[in-house]
Amino acid sequence: MIYLDNAATSFPKPSEVYEEVLKCMKNYAANPGRGSYEIAVKAASKIMETREEICNLFNIASLFNLIFTSNATEALNIGIKGILEKGDHVISTVIEHNSVLRPLHSLSEKGVDVTLISSDKAGYVSIKDIKDEIKKNTKMIIISHISNVLGSIQDIKNIGNLSKSNGIIFMVDASQSAGIIPIDVEREHIDLLAFSGHKGLLGPQGTGCLFIREGIKLKNFKEGGTGSNSHFMIQPDFLPDKFESGTLNTPGIAGLGEGVKFIKRIGIDSIQKYEEELTSYLLEEIKRLSYIKIYGSYSGNKRGPVVSFNIEGVDASIVGEELDKEGIAVRTGYHCAALIHDVIGTEYAGTVRVSPGYFNTFDDIEKLIVAIMRIYKVR
Amino acid sequence: MIYLDNAATSFPKPSEVYEEVLKCMKNYAANPGRGSYEIAVKAASKIMETREEICNLFNIASLFNLIFTSNATEALNIGIKGILEKGDHVISTVIEHNSVLRPLHSLSEKGVDVTLISSDKAGYVSIKDIKDEIKKNTKMIIISHISNVLGSIQDIKNIGNLSKSNGIIFMVDASQSAGIIPIDVEREHIDLLAFSGHKGLLGPQGTGCLFIREGIKLKNFKEGGTGSNSHFMIQPDFLPDKFESGTLNTPGIAGLGEGVKFIKRIGIDSIQKYEEELTSYLLEEIKRLSYIKIYGSYSGNKRGPVVSFNIEGVDASIVGEELDKEGIAVRTGYHCAALIHDVIGTEYAGTVRVSPGYFNTFDDIEKLIVAIMRIYKVR
Repeated sequence: MIYLDNAATSFPKPSEVYEEVLKCMKNYAANPGRGSYEIAVKAASKIMETREEICNLFNIASLFNLIFTSNATEALNIGIKGILEKGDHVISTVIEHNSVLRPLHSLSEKGVDVTLISSDKAGYVSIKDIKDEIKKNTKMIIISHISNVLGSIQDIKNIGNLSKSNGIIFMVDASQSAGIIPIDVEREHIDLLAFSGHKGLLGPQGTGCLFIREGIKLKNFKEGGTGSNSHFMIQPDFLPDKFESGTLNTPGIAGLGEGVKFIKRIGIDSIQKYEEELTSYLLEEIKRLSYIKIYGSYSGNKRGPVVSFNIEGVDASIVGEELDKEGIAVRTGYHCAALIHDVIGTEYAGTVRVSPGYFNTFDDIEKLIVAIMRIYKVR
Repeated sequence: MIYLDNAATSFPKPSEVYEEVLKCMKNYAANPGRGSYEIAVKAASKIMETREEICNLFNIASLFNLIFTSNATEALNIGIKGILEKGDHVISTVIEHNSVLRPLHSLSEKGVDVTLISSDKAGYVSIKDIKDEIKKNTKMIIISHISNVLGSIQDIKNIGNLSKSNGIIFMVDASQSAGIIPIDVEREHIDLLAFSGHKGLLGPQGTGCLFIREGIKLKNFKEGGTGSNSHFMIQPDFLPDKFESGTLNTPGIAGLGEGVKFIKRIGIDSIQKYEEELTSYLLEEIKRLSYIKIYGSYSGNKRGPVVSFNIEGVDASIVGEELDKEGIAVRTGYHCAALIHDVIGTEYAGTVRVSPGYFNTFDDIEKLIVAIMRIYKVR
């Protein structure tokens, strides 16, 4: 099988990830932070090790400002709903994933003023457009670092600067960028960084994270046992315990730690460069096919490793089915992004989305292109 | 190592659990419910298979009424905060875990009227006490099926009857009972059943579930991509999608399915009987030691496999440390239960908690007892 759906979840993972998950389950999957016996301490310290690896990758100064969640969606909900209250204004964009749009939509019904900035057809948002929308009560700016449909990379450094100079909380959805392109929460003035553990970071599913800048107060939804202040009915107010109630996914987090170590060993610049090359090659080749409509930028280095397209006269879902028959896994449809399709004109059909990962080869892309040509020919 | 902390998380798991997690990660850990290619379909159908196994175990008629969460704490928060609103009255107990007490405490600050019924010293709650507290606005009764400190098993069948005849929503925290003793949501009139996947059900950490009876409407916290209605900014209102936003823990859920199959193969009655025997043996033996103070019932078949005690003159944490030196893993302290310690008089010291599991042997218990005697002797 040729797997080209890494934007949904990366597959395969480095073998170290599998090994650590298994090693953890078999040897030290006690309840971390609860017991004081040997394997409970080992479980807790493994979780701390993963925290450290991730913090180091994103230049997060304090380990306690990173909380583990079950996925990026949970991290986004905690960040968005933890901050915004009736009367607040928030600026976000039409490129966002439903994990941002749906929380914002339900907040809008509770009196939060939501402005969604449009993008150009290639999926880029203008900083001027954001600036123009800032009001006195603008509390937060939320932006997807890399679009999961168009691959467009937003200029988060300058948006971060803009946020900071206006005293606005800056939240970045890094679901498609964490582990794919460099992120530095200081350089980019990120206050809240939400991301998956199972995509670019190459960890197992069931993992996600939220970085919370020191001093930012968030309400929390989930309360319960934290292994701390256990004699009190009040949820601890300190990080990370405030947001880490109940048993964590120890094997998943242990595996995630190995995924991050793998990324550091290869070097995120090398990973980015290689994935850019795969993406550029794909774009170059399908650009030549007159019956292919590519959405987003034509340049591989202006986007993350995500390419959406359609074949003239063939429904995206049919393309997906046909590729599946040839053992090629891609995603088709709307990709859980409700609004971007109106911008690119795919509101009735969705797109075929190809998202290569570090373990793909040029040969994989070649085979995809041959298959695309065949599908068009026999349509 | 002798592991006796199964109330925190079961360890080890059946080998099939490890194998399926690994098989899933290596072969089919695509994003379930998102793609239509072979391994994404396989991931989705494996999740459906686990759903089916669990529903079958608890006599849940419709697969869609079971939602996967990251742990029991999340399931409890969804159930409790999804129902209760300002002006509602809820009845719960002092035996509850902090995953019930802390949500209730924060709701009480928002105008929910919370009544916590006390228990006797053995940890049993009287149905009459519950009945006496029912008011016109009583919306919900929440009870822990088996106490995680005292092992007391509550009479959920009769509490369920009481709830039903008064039109009150009945929620059971089955974190310590799921997979340990039989549960039937119909027989016991349970409306909301929350439980961990990684305790008695023998699945990996990072898994939990909530059963929601048809017709019960819950507000939801987490919104986002569900792979359904993707073109709409409104969270789907149907189950399970409403509560399953973002990527599920596919390998964890796959492993959980194998844990449940293992339980069915052995038979829950056999598991219950064996764990009762281990517990009775432990109780019989430590009862003879005059310097041991046992909390809860002295009878192994009136409680789940959870035994709390203290050694006269030795702090619980010291007992834990000494046992750890001998390779015996038990939990000490307050066990994330804020209120029960006032009932049993351990508010300043906590307890030593021993919780055997299906993979423990009589020899493990024997070694624990010998170690306890030694600790007392050299104190």
